[in-house]
Amino acid sequence: MNNNLQLSGERFRISYILRGNYEEISKKAKNICYEQTVEFPEDLVPIGIIKDQIVGRIEDLIEIEKGKYEVIISYAVETSGFELTQLFNVIYGNTSIKPGIKVDKIVLPDILLNRFKGPQFGRKGIRKLLEVFDRPLLCTALKPMGLSTDKLAKQAYEFAKGGIDIIKDDHGIADQIFSPFEERVQKCCEAVARANQETGYKSFYVPNMNGPTEKIKKKAFFVKEVGAGGLVISPGLTGWDIIRQLAEDNTLSLPILSHPAFLGSFVTSQDNGMSHGVLFGQIMRLIGADAIIFPNYGGRFSFSQEECISIAKMTKAPMGHMASIFPAPGGGMTMNKLPDMFEVYGKDVIFLIGGDLHRHSKDLVKNSQYFRKIVEKM
Amino acid sequence: MNNNLQLSGERFRISYILRGNYEEISKKAKNICYEQTVEFPEDLVPIGIIKDQIVGRIEDLIEIEKGKYEVIISYAVETSGFELTQLFNVIYGNTSIKPGIKVDKIVLPDILLNRFKGPQFGRKGIRKLLEVFDRPLLCTALKPMGLSTDKLAKQAYEFAKGGIDIIKDDHGIADQIFSPFEERVQKCCEAVARANQETGYKSFYVPNMNGPTEKIKKKAFFVKEVGAGGLVISPGLTGWDIIRQLAEDNTLSLPILSHPAFLGSFVTSQDNGMSHGVLFGQIMRLIGADAIIFPNYGGRFSFSQEECISIAKMTKAPMGHMASIFPAPGGGMTMNKLPDMFEVYGKDVIFLIGGDLHRHSKDLVKNSQYFRKIVEKM
Repeated sequence: MNNNLQLSGERFRISYILRGNYEEISKKAKNICYEQTVEFPEDLVPIGIIKDQIVGRIEDLIEIEKGKYEVIISYAVETSGFELTQLFNVIYGNTSIKPGIKVDKIVLPDILLNRFKGPQFGRKGIRKLLEVFDRPLLCTALKPMGLSTDKLAKQAYEFAKGGIDIIKDDHGIADQIFSPFEERVQKCCEAVARANQETGYKSFYVPNMNGPTEKIKKKAFFVKEVGAGGLVISPGLTGWDIIRQLAEDNTLSLPILSHPAFLGSFVTSQDNGMSHGVLFGQIMRLIGADAIIFPNYGGRFSFSQEECISIAKMTKAPMGHMASIFPAPGGGMTMNKLPDMFEVYGKDVIFLIGGDLHRHSKDLVKNSQYFRKIVEKM
Repeated sequence: MNNNLQLSGERFRISYILRGNYEEISKKAKNICYEQTVEFPEDLVPIGIIKDQIVGRIEDLIEIEKGKYEVIISYAVETSGFELTQLFNVIYGNTSIKPGIKVDKIVLPDILLNRFKGPQFGRKGIRKLLEVFDRPLLCTALKPMGLSTDKLAKQAYEFAKGGIDIIKDDHGIADQIFSPFEERVQKCCEAVARANQETGYKSFYVPNMNGPTEKIKKKAFFVKEVGAGGLVISPGLTGWDIIRQLAEDNTLSLPILSHPAFLGSFVTSQDNGMSHGVLFGQIMRLIGADAIIFPNYGGRFSFSQEECISIAKMTKAPMGHMASIFPAPGGGMTMNKLPDMFEVYGKDVIFLIGGDLHRHSKDLVKNSQYFRKIVEKM
């Protein structure tokens, strides 16, 4: 034991959902306390600070329905090393490999939250950049993969001209021979700037930043230099901490949209992974995303309306100093669903419509104007 | 369409497991082809190269049991941008969010595999470093979290003295006040070097590298400088591409052990995620891990023997120029299970025993010698 070691006594709390009877749950809960910290048989754990404070502590076992329990376990903030990867490790590292345990809620004390900057822009910051304060924001994606840079830039121009606020790369458009990254960013930025000059809007282009780790930061500064308005990143592909790194950089200072690619397995099971609110709301906010893209109910994916509402709720639930962020539901959304979505999400939402914006007519400017008109009337 | 765009015609093939009747499967398979590439309604996809070559192509639908199909879909290698994050995105990006689709096998042509270096050491390289050619390797973890650096270094010395080949940090020991990273690496390296001088063995210490993205590379070179023999990284926490970046670095040149923390949700469901062989065998090898830690059957976790065997199989299955890597089953393993494990894995395995090495007696040197003796007789 470190002779002089003293812990702050501050703890963070994780709610896990487990299934079984009380006895089974009690045993599983205790296992989590050990697995997530000392990873050591109980009888071998040194007495003193390690046993008393470092091993996770069961705070509550609540039967939420017959055979389904919320187990609240607290951990000393010091176990996290006050950085994201180890914090996530304590929350769900090894336990992710044990079936039947789902992370349902994360409650971090200020002493821990204050070590992370969180979203640099959040809802307010993005609204300020766009100078749009009183309506939902409009977003679309340049697509499909395989188009040349010139065709994608033409789309970018037309979307901006028609009043789409945020024009992002489709998340499958990366750095391929069809449209190399730097060439595309340059031309799409120029295209959107030209449209903005004509319209007076403040639309911005958001390139897809997924790619080799060692290049992302340099690419981000290139993107900034040529005038892109933000970044879209899939942390399931690039790693969580990349977003934190870029979001904390005040010299970069670009809003970040997170994309859910490769993260689905965290939420496709009822019994494992994380709740939608934790993954898309709490975690994305903690790592510093300013807006979170997720598949809306009723589209090509299978999230329920209730799950989508829980995500939206967690984008603005109290979380220390962390700014509220934008939910950006998409994934096969169509314009005729906008009134219903407005009723569900309210005005603090980014409506992401991809394919349907191409379908309405062959004129992308007009289609975008139509989209905008619907939203401006809300 | 890019007027001069030509694709190589080379394609990679992904096997997905889907459930349903033939009609449902055919429809779902087609959806995957579009979702993973153009993310665009079929009728809007431009004819020509995009429709013919960029959209995924169903190569086969095989009913492997009643209502369960293997669907083989091929993608143009160019869609991957020849880098990991986009390759993973095409394999399973958005489709991960759709329930009932599991990645079962990955077949990459040489034109794609050759763009990745893969494991720098692999089985042969690690054996050469340790000068151990004809028996399973021995591995243990310094633990529990909360011990001081001096106590962990004492453990490191004792394990090395007793003949453990690879002494790694427990994956929950990161950069915390209990034992700050640099201090620990320094003292554990010294401890193992001292033991090696006394024994003549080539044991090495492997620190846990999880932490902020921008620091990992610098930390790796520090670790190298003070004499650590390898790195352990959890790509579920740090991002996949971090391992690729470190594995490709010839000036660093340290073997990498991957740890499964935070990746469990990829394999805990029968219907979603990936097969054990894909995640722990193929993907870890592709990103450049030289050894992969995973929970053995019969321990604290729930992998079946069959699943573990499939992992071991994929660590050495033909994969272009990629070296075979070591399976390192652990997770609550005990010394009395070694003979059975030897029968299952053969000699090309790293036996990872943690807690049980502390239990055998209070003398860690003797316990390690006992472990080694069992393995040397194999």
